[in-house]
Amino acid sequence: MLTMQDALARLTAYWTAQGCLTVQPMNTEVGAGTLNPATFLRVLGPEPWRVVYVEPSVRPDDSRYGENPNRLQTHTQMQVILKPDPGNPQELYLGSLEALGIDVKAHDIRFVEDNWASPALGAWGLGWEVWLDGLEITQFTYFQQAGGLNLEPVSVEITYGIERIIMALQEKTHFKDIEYGDAISYGEVFGQSEYEMSRYYLDDADVAANRQLLEIYAAEAQRLIDAGLPVPAHTYVLKCSQAFNVLDSRGAVSTADRAAEFGRMRRLAGEVAKLWVARRDEMGHPLGLVPPLPAAVAAALPAARENARTLIFEIGTEELPPSEARAARDYVQRALTEGLAGTRLEHEEVRVFATPRRLVALVPSVAAREADHVRQVKGPRVGAPAKAVEGFARGQGVSASELSVASVGGVDHHVVSREEVGGHASEVLAPVLAKVVTGLRAAKNMRWNDPQLSFSRPIRWLTALWGDDVVPVAVGTLAAGRRTRLLRTAAEPVVEIASAETFMETLALAGIVADPEDRHDLIVTGAQDEVYPDGRVDVTGEAALIEQISYLVEAPTPLLGTFDEGYLSLPDAVLTTVMRKHQRYLPVRGEDGSLLPMFVTVANGPVDVELVRAGNEAVLRARYEDAAFFYRADRALPVAEMRDRLTRLTFTDKLGSMADRAARIATLALSLADSLGLGSATLGRAARLVKFDLGSQLVTEMTSLAGVMARDYALHAGEPRDVAQAVYETELPRNTGDALPASVPGALLSLADRLDLVAGLAATVGLPTGSSDPFAVRRAVLGLLAVHRAHPALAALSLTEALRTAAAQQPVEVSSQVLDAAGDFLARRLEQVLTEEGHPVDRVRAAIGHYARPSVVDAMLAQLETLVGNPDFVAVAAAIQRSRRILPPDTAAGYDPALLTEPAELALHEAVSNVKADFGTDLNAFTAAVEPLVEPLSRFFDEVFVMAEDPSLRAARLGLLATVRDLGAGLLDWPELRL
Amino acid sequence: MLTMQDALARLTAYWTAQGCLTVQPMNTEVGAGTLNPATFLRVLGPEPWRVVYVEPSVRPDDSRYGENPNRLQTHTQMQVILKPDPGNPQELYLGSLEALGIDVKAHDIRFVEDNWASPALGAWGLGWEVWLDGLEITQFTYFQQAGGLNLEPVSVEITYGIERIIMALQEKTHFKDIEYGDAISYGEVFGQSEYEMSRYYLDDADVAANRQLLEIYAAEAQRLIDAGLPVPAHTYVLKCSQAFNVLDSRGAVSTADRAAEFGRMRRLAGEVAKLWVARRDEMGHPLGLVPPLPAAVAAALPAARENARTLIFEIGTEELPPSEARAARDYVQRALTEGLAGTRLEHEEVRVFATPRRLVALVPSVAAREADHVRQVKGPRVGAPAKAVEGFARGQGVSASELSVASVGGVDHHVVSREEVGGHASEVLAPVLAKVVTGLRAAKNMRWNDPQLSFSRPIRWLTALWGDDVVPVAVGTLAAGRRTRLLRTAAEPVVEIASAETFMETLALAGIVADPEDRHDLIVTGAQDEVYPDGRVDVTGEAALIEQISYLVEAPTPLLGTFDEGYLSLPDAVLTTVMRKHQRYLPVRGEDGSLLPMFVTVANGPVDVELVRAGNEAVLRARYEDAAFFYRADRALPVAEMRDRLTRLTFTDKLGSMADRAARIATLALSLADSLGLGSATLGRAARLVKFDLGSQLVTEMTSLAGVMARDYALHAGEPRDVAQAVYETELPRNTGDALPASVPGALLSLADRLDLVAGLAATVGLPTGSSDPFAVRRAVLGLLAVHRAHPALAALSLTEALRTAAAQQPVEVSSQVLDAAGDFLARRLEQVLTEEGHPVDRVRAAIGHYARPSVVDAMLAQLETLVGNPDFVAVAAAIQRSRRILPPDTAAGYDPALLTEPAELALHEAVSNVKADFGTDLNAFTAAVEPLVEPLSRFFDEVFVMAEDPSLRAARLGLLATVRDLGAGLLDWPELRL
Repeated sequence: MLTMQDALARLTAYWTAQGCLTVQPMNTEVGAGTLNPATFLRVLGPEPWRVVYVEPSVRPDDSRYGENPNRLQTHTQMQVILKPDPGNPQELYLGSLEALGIDVKAHDIRFVEDNWASPALGAWGLGWEVWLDGLEITQFTYFQQAGGLNLEPVSVEITYGIERIIMALQEKTHFKDIEYGDAISYGEVFGQSEYEMSRYYLDDADVAANRQLLEIYAAEAQRLIDAGLPVPAHTYVLKCSQAFNVLDSRGAVSTADRAAEFGRMRRLAGEVAKLWVARRDEMGHPLGLVPPLPAAVAAALPAARENARTLIFEIGTEELPPSEARAARDYVQRALTEGLAGTRLEHEEVRVFATPRRLVALVPSVAAREADHVRQVKGPRVGAPAKAVEGFARGQGVSASELSVASVGGVDHHVVSREEVGGHASEVLAPVLAKVVTGLRAAKNMRWNDPQLSFSRPIRWLTALWGDDVVPVAVGTLAAGRRTRLLRTAAEPVVEIASAETFMETLALAGIVADPEDRHDLIVTGAQDEVYPDGRVDVTGEAALIEQISYLVEAPTPLLGTFDEGYLSLPDAVLTTVMRKHQRYLPVRGEDGSLLPMFVTVANGPVDVELVRAGNEAVLRARYEDAAFFYRADRALPVAEMRDRLTRLTFTDKLGSMADRAARIATLALSLADSLGLGSATLGRAARLVKFDLGSQLVTEMTSLAGVMARDYALHAGEPRDVAQAVYETELPRNTGDALPASVPGALLSLADRLDLVAGLAATVGLPTGSSDPFAVRRAVLGLLAVHRAHPALAALSLTEALRTAAAQQPVEVSSQVLDAAGDFLARRLEQVLTEEGHPVDRVRAAIGHYARPSVVDAMLAQLETLVGNPDFVAVAAAIQRSRRILPPDTAAGYDPALLTEPAELALHEAVSNVKADFGTDLNAFTAAVEPLVEPLSRFFDEVFVMAEDPSLRAARLGLLATVRDLGAGLLDWPELRL
Repeated sequence: MLTMQDALARLTAYWTAQGCLTVQPMNTEVGAGTLNPATFLRVLGPEPWRVVYVEPSVRPDDSRYGENPNRLQTHTQMQVILKPDPGNPQELYLGSLEALGIDVKAHDIRFVEDNWASPALGAWGLGWEVWLDGLEITQFTYFQQAGGLNLEPVSVEITYGIERIIMALQEKTHFKDIEYGDAISYGEVFGQSEYEMSRYYLDDADVAANRQLLEIYAAEAQRLIDAGLPVPAHTYVLKCSQAFNVLDSRGAVSTADRAAEFGRMRRLAGEVAKLWVARRDEMGHPLGLVPPLPAAVAAALPAARENARTLIFEIGTEELPPSEARAARDYVQRALTEGLAGTRLEHEEVRVFATPRRLVALVPSVAAREADHVRQVKGPRVGAPAKAVEGFARGQGVSASELSVASVGGVDHHVVSREEVGGHASEVLAPVLAKVVTGLRAAKNMRWNDPQLSFSRPIRWLTALWGDDVVPVAVGTLAAGRRTRLLRTAAEPVVEIASAETFMETLALAGIVADPEDRHDLIVTGAQDEVYPDGRVDVTGEAALIEQISYLVEAPTPLLGTFDEGYLSLPDAVLTTVMRKHQRYLPVRGEDGSLLPMFVTVANGPVDVELVRAGNEAVLRARYEDAAFFYRADRALPVAEMRDRLTRLTFTDKLGSMADRAARIATLALSLADSLGLGSATLGRAARLVKFDLGSQLVTEMTSLAGVMARDYALHAGEPRDVAQAVYETELPRNTGDALPASVPGALLSLADRLDLVAGLAATVGLPTGSSDPFAVRRAVLGLLAVHRAHPALAALSLTEALRTAAAQQPVEVSSQVLDAAGDFLARRLEQVLTEEGHPVDRVRAAIGHYARPSVVDAMLAQLETLVGNPDFVAVAAAIQRSRRILPPDTAAGYDPALLTEPAELALHEAVSNVKADFGTDLNAFTAAVEPLVEPLSRFFDEVFVMAEDPSLRAARLGLLATVRDLGAGLLDWPELRL
């Protein structure tokens, strides 16, 4: 059996043979191999670098006293850096797995989108998690930035999680059982350290001491930056990071602290990076420069052909994220269609297919040549001076006699007619295809070893065939040819294509399903087959997941796996969250909708089914064991104790602990209920429990389960069902489109939760601006609006007043300016939501003044829907708008009726006097109440000259109009309404 | 060419194949692989452990900005731990060198005594530096203690200095030129880091911050110890150590700080070690226990023989330190002689030879049997009751009639005579030889894998032959046989010996020279041959070195090496210190005594001469380059600037900087000179320079050159020769037997130096007690005495008064109790010195009261030498002693002569009155002055009854005697003198 130490030696030897240096782990604690200067500093700047090293990586947060079978405070990374990107890093990587004795053809090895970013390092890159039968074994990243600097050339970073790989290879279920060396286990070598360091990180590290360390380290880092010494400065940045991680694992970092510390570390890391680059520049780049790759030379232009043929254009990539593959497909469809439209080549419809590794455009019957064509060059108008006409002819290189006359825009002009010969297909297609490639862009783009291209993932090959001919496309370092790549595990992974017409068949024969819809169907039917007759896959419920999976594989191979029935005692949400989010497995349900101990995973290509099934089962087992471990521990803990843990969780440094926040939410919910007469025993009890599951281990691990676990743990502890439900509903909605609280107690708690968040954060860190919203205040505000709108019982509640109540409870002062700004923020979000829902902007703007009670706005918009067709409403609205236009802004309502003289104004006066303004915010009632004004208003405007010369008369008329205007006051912002 | 990274991989692979685990370097900065818990913790307790790992070892003090070709702030250690001692670790180690491609037969590989100790870890062990052609490439240690705990089983620690080994293998002269990987140099990989980290350690580390870190780390270590967590506690001890080293490299650690910090770290490390052991006990020793080695079974007893044969007894060891080999030879000679004397085996003289690897006893003509022998058992006296006699006979198992009579102690007794048959040689010899082995002890003993034995280095084999027979000796795990080991590089390293008579010849044929005197002669003649006719080796001057070398090799092979003549510009002392102390090379001088650019090294056995020569030359070149580097830098620095650096060197925290100390020495020397009228321009100038060379790099590196370099640098700077000499002489004597200052200015400065040291340290850390004397106060006091005694011009100087003057200058108060204690300390040292010089104790004690002026004591002892034979002196001395016996202690001198009555007392009165007490401390003058008293005293004692009944008469007589007594007051402590 391959021991862990042999595996490390083999990987080292493999990568050394690939030209990598071997260096040693960092001699200060690091969280990942990336932090070692052999990565962080060396990826900067223009010098080449290839390195492999082991890095024991310390994650204080992952401390589990060595009890958790899969989680360690120190795990072993093997880190490889290839700078520049060698062009085939995935293939090299697969070679390393073979060096470990892994049969890559038998296993399901997948590159699953993963965008890596380290905010504290100002670093990011795009790439993948590599999955071995569902197990994440490697992080594979094209580094784009480090220390805030763009990386040129780009480095490939490959980080192996050694314990995981070895556990899988040795079929161990606990890391302690790994055979580390001959006849000595991992637990025997590292077990005690794992326990004791966990104790340190979780229980015994002195918080005050580590805070002091953090400050000293940061100061030393800054001093060294000022002294121009990036290497020792970097060491101190790493020490900062470790001290911070220790504080974090001790629960001593608030959200605000975290943001501040990340900011500081990012700034320090950025300065270190700049310094390093400057120093290497000064030193004249001792390791030399990466030579630029030569531009590709396009294939030779083929001979002229006669007949229409199919065009195949394949853009071969490394594994694209599903959303990007879809978007790229659409783009290619559009771009190629437009590109062809710019030619005079006849062709049938453009079809484009996408898989994770390729975009394939198929255009049947592309003509061999463009039709010939006469082009007219416009000259002077007929009748222009002869000199001008001669000049034109001379300029065109013809004699004046060769000019003809044609009508251009209805006017006769002298013209030159030129016959243009149509281009041959290949020559015409080449620039069109090239432009399609250079135009490829993703939501998030990266660079690799191509100096010209930028896309979601590297583009590695182009296949362009028109019939039998290679279309001579060349873009950047890529020249199109007739070779395509099949599955990496194919017997012959690269094949030549005889002609465009055989291309799709070649892919199909190799098992590659190019059409996403076909893959979707294959997955659905395959999965159904696998689970039949025991269970079923909820195709509708899992539509998003199936869609995603269909873009994760080229050759879908659904496999059924099972897990121990015992895990079914875990909550449904826990089981499915793990399956969907972490593993992209399809849950399997029985007739009654309950989960069965099965899952469907979809492998890529013809794998060893038993091997892959067993691997995936082991992965799921480990994940469920992990969850069960937490679940058992959580359930064993009394609710009150779990809640007590909230005192140890900081919300933000200025806003106290999570316990403080939970107490505020409870008080606020009860106070809102009182003001609305909605108090209840359920609410009372639920308020005492709110947020308690944040103290649980499972929620700490899987934050998306907050609320769900609260309900579970509360029920387990014997709380009434409605109480447990209300505690759950406090967390709703968790995102746009999520369920809303169904119960009133739940709704009140949900509102209180969000009001507290908004009031506190608005006063301390400010409201979100731009795209930055680290505390998700926007989402909280949207939740507030949604909950309010969904609950008629809450219609009377003013959110701005409730915000004021929430503000009064904060441990910091919340000024009225802040509250005003928060109200304004709320209004703008509501306006946006309503507009997105399809309400006309004018009506939304007219009604938005009632944003504090969004359900009022809803009601008004509903009424306006019909009222805008009601002539009475329209007439009064118009009159109000007209009044506002006429009236100087400060004109008060009220007038001396005795001063009125004209009959029309007297009639209006009488009608106005009779209007009873008891319609509240009911626009229908308003319309009914003001209907008697319609005719008098019309007469008034027709017959009365408001701006009479007599000042007192004028004042009375203006006062009368102001009275009309104010009938609509507080109802709508009338000028906004388009009538 | 073997790259460095390949070398690391090969060594790892080699040791892994020997059953070692591979682990990673420590992820916090360590000064050596020993500190990694894989060594420090794992060598504790009874569990087995074998490990190999790389350890980048950080030595802030070795920072040289990457400029020095051989010194790095971070060098790469490869660390191997074998626990338990496998019995053949040296052979395994040689195998690892072969794995690196080193031909161990061609090179000169030597195990040179090196006793390793880490005071900060409470750890020590015995072992060697391994030399490859004179280059120290490995530290090889049998760990005896760690954390203050005895190690059982003992671990073997092998630490390779990788850069050095690789530089030698790749024939590089600068570490930066090492080929680290393919086509990439060490400098390219680590150069920038080496420079920048040097900057940090030497110039930029914040002292205050690192002090804070040290305190925080120590506190955290203590907290974790209190929490019972040895692993994280150990980590913090390591962090303490690094913070301390940083402070040290910044020159911020005083001698007292150092002692205190070492004490703290030792205490913490000790507690960590205890905790670890306790925890492993609790855990039931997860790695199991080392099985005890079985006791050896002695060879079978041979058949009886007839003829006397030679006895050979060889005790085979790993390389003994020279002094231990010599001592062990003497011991074996004595013990075997005595052991044989306890038998009745006839034999010729015992001869014993010693080499580094063996003790060989040779005893010719050992009889085949002991002579038979009659033993008498003594019974009751003749005439005792018959019952008693019968009881005796019964007890002896004989009838009464079988008793005979014999005289015992002149009295006739009944006896039983028993005839005892003599033992056969092998059977008689076996216990004698076994006892010789078990009795072996060294000044410093160690344990290895033998549960019974303890010695300077491991005993690995026993060869015991009497004639053709193996003597059946078994001790511990060793059974004697007929096999011996030759040179490790021999074609057949282990051979069978046919008979004792052929043993010495077998060794000789294998090139092993067993007799140290033969080796000495071989070295001398060989060296002379090598250097003839160009130069000569100063056999007398280098006697100690030659003697040492003769115990470093078994098969001396002198080789001549040369070095670049350019290095001859370095001071003679620098060149020879490096040769003798560091390399054990014999310097070669020309006819005029000046050094030639040559050296003789003595290899062990038949090496590849050219290879070994070249290797040794490279080593010397590197060392000289190192020294030249410092020497050039030092000479380029103005003396004043060098002296300014003393302000940055702390003497002790309470006694200020070295600059403060130098200033005090100067002031004191001038003040002493004033008081003696010995002031001079030379002294004035020298006083301003004193100690300035402590600011030089060369002296920082080679402290034994202090003073020597001062003279060199002062002359170079244009100082007068006598000034430079006086500055040099300030440091004299550097140890017992060293030269003393020849000039008066030098002597005054030397005294001032030592007086300052004694006064300051006595007041702050106290005078030395027991064997602990970290500041060498004892040596300083001995120096004071020696210098005073050597200089008649200083005879008038009172050292106690001078000490008082020195005390007044200290920055701390020096109480009179402290000064009294210091005076007493001085007196005791002088007494000891004089006694050791052979002066009779009684005279020394009589004169020691003048210790403040040791030359006075010397003069008195010289006079006493003859005076003790002078009857006048003896008579007076006896009278004084008698007076002191008779007189009550408080009796004052003086009397009323009118009260005296007897002629004898009147005569004495008259004689006493005439004595002129102007003899000072001159005993001869005293004797002349008191000669007239001799006769009256004699009469007085004969004729006068002192204790008269009349009180006034008695008082007068006592007063007269007291007057006689006081004639000798202040001269000697008379009662001490034996007459």
